Amino acid sequence: MTFNDTFLKACMGRPVEYTPVWLMRQAGRYLPQYQRVRTNLSFLELCKNPELCVEVTLQPIDYLGVDAAILFSDILIPLEAMGLALEFHEGRGPVLPEPIHGKAALDRLIVPDPRETMGFVLKTIELLRRELSVPLIGFAGAPFTCATYSIEGGSSKVFWETKKMMFAAPELFHAIMAKITQTTISYLRAQAEAGAQALQLFDSWAGILAPGDYRHYALPYVEQIFTQLRDCAVPLIYFINNGATLLNQCESIAAQVIGVDWRVNIGEAARLVSPKVVQGNLDPAALLLPEPQLRTRLEALLADAEQATGHIFNLGHGVNHFTPPEKAKLVVDLVHQLSAQPDHH
Amino acid sequence: MTFNDTFLKACMGRPVEYTPVWLMRQAGRYLPQYQRVRTNLSFLELCKNPELCVEVTLQPIDYLGVDAAILFSDILIPLEAMGLALEFHEGRGPVLPEPIHGKAALDRLIVPDPRETMGFVLKTIELLRRELSVPLIGFAGAPFTCATYSIEGGSSKVFWETKKMMFAAPELFHAIMAKITQTTISYLRAQAEAGAQALQLFDSWAGILAPGDYRHYALPYVEQIFTQLRDCAVPLIYFINNGATLLNQCESIAAQVIGVDWRVNIGEAARLVSPKVVQGNLDPAALLLPEPQLRTRLEALLADAEQATGHIFNLGHGVNHFTPPEKAKLVVDLVHQLSAQPDHH
Repeated sequence: MTFNDTFLKACMGRPVEYTPVWLMRQAGRYLPQYQRVRTNLSFLELCKNPELCVEVTLQPIDYLGVDAAILFSDILIPLEAMGLALEFHEGRGPVLPEPIHGKAALDRLIVPDPRETMGFVLKTIELLRRELSVPLIGFAGAPFTCATYSIEGGSSKVFWETKKMMFAAPELFHAIMAKITQTTISYLRAQAEAGAQALQLFDSWAGILAPGDYRHYALPYVEQIFTQLRDCAVPLIYFINNGATLLNQCESIAAQVIGVDWRVNIGEAARLVSPKVVQGNLDPAALLLPEPQLRTRLEALLADAEQATGHIFNLGHGVNHFTPPEKAKLVVDLVHQLSAQPDHH
Repeated sequence: MTFNDTFLKACMGRPVEYTPVWLMRQAGRYLPQYQRVRTNLSFLELCKNPELCVEVTLQPIDYLGVDAAILFSDILIPLEAMGLALEFHEGRGPVLPEPIHGKAALDRLIVPDPRETMGFVLKTIELLRRELSVPLIGFAGAPFTCATYSIEGGSSKVFWETKKMMFAAPELFHAIMAKITQTTISYLRAQAEAGAQALQLFDSWAGILAPGDYRHYALPYVEQIFTQLRDCAVPLIYFINNGATLLNQCESIAAQVIGVDWRVNIGEAARLVSPKVVQGNLDPAALLLPEPQLRTRLEALLADAEQATGHIFNLGHGVNHFTPPEKAKLVVDLVHQLSAQPDHH
């Protein structure tokens, strides 16, 4: 089988025959074949089973025809490895029953050796590399995003506990961020050593910060991670959700690619992060558009993205649970088709 | 008692002695005196009791020393008047047990006479005007925001049902928006006639839309409302939450003031909405900063806002439940103090 390196070329801003595509959460609940694997298995059990992680990672690759695979795992796995209890309750999202609210909990937090504590992830990567003919993306959550879970004890609407700590106990907050950052660096490095051919850092919640707070409380840790990972010699991607007003701070980040959500025009995002490559950014719900309107929207998105140094197509967020799989496939086909036309080059 | 018209002057972009302040949700759960009123009363019972609405509207006025009062009510009151059942469950937010999912539910939706169905709100306004020495702001939810509640049946994380209707059944969606818009226009007009001295439209959820979708599905209805309300001859305010990437579309809106959330720098917001006045935008959680840091932050915010045609200080979102009341008071005092200094004029 021939290896498809279009995604890797696009990450480096090199010319490509068409716009490469992958979809955040392309392996997941919207696929019946994923649901079947999950039938008798909890989410965490699945995450810790390399053979089954390989299976669900591969499920969308041939079906969708995407240009990259992303490791099936969860951004909270390293928090558990750091010593925080982690539970997933169906339909409710993650719960960390012992969130960090003080120095004692911080002191109990360890910076683990990923080989000892997250070997199942590294094993999954090794197994996947034998099967894949597209590049494999490894990933982790960004420190601020992980910190919110560790402090809130789960998802949150207003992130009051996180901000309370930031504003009223900043030393504690920064100490948590530092430990998460150290863990993230060694975890992502181990993923690259195990065979991941690109690394993405997901900053799902940085968008709840005012620009000045992002600069002070979140950005320095992101910078540190990417700077430390430069010698892994794989493309580095920073996805920042709801971050339109933060993109102008991405210059100092040693990632080649910035992923953006759907709230910002991709051309505007490209201008803000230039000369970095952009990744994104169709609203996942736009997959519900009838085909003609979906095509029109993709044409506009691809035209806007022509301003970028390079463009990797993705959704602006993960594939939604209720997406018809054939619509996910259609969007991949349409992007390939439309971007391969000569007037898009 | 002397009437303090600083807020009204600032709305019109006229010179003021200091930056006027009010806080979204300044009347609410963070105040012990509010909690006392609520002891034996549900939220909806309170909303429909003019005497008690007057009491809770007035509670923060003297205590905080704000320059405007805002009617105590809820943005979902008009949806109930349109025929949608509405419930509030403690700690869970609003529930509309019969959301709109098809044409039959749309057809049952009425465009009510606000005097007949929401007389308690108009009565509250009339009573308040006898008591207040600061301007009274009336309000309603923006059509897109109200539509999300009517379609989702409550709050939502990803607004899948709303977007599904937008994308797969756009005629139904636009018909809902049209009915909500008509209701909102007559409701806000009635508030002005009852004595409201400014009107604010809250677009809490427009920020979940891609810029192109906002232009097509939400903005035309906002434009229609403000255009229709121009002859009320009171300042019109449009608050758009999480809307940094939408602010450049506000030019066509006949509101004098644009309110913004904390995710955007207020100077940048001022540039985008110029020559309109800006309102905002401290992160509500920043009230937890120790006083020296809070002061520094307010100095920076006020300096950034000097680029604006005019500035009304507010939080970027409602006062959080867990805010110490004395911190809310401190922020009002600090803004008054700092903005009255000669170097801020």
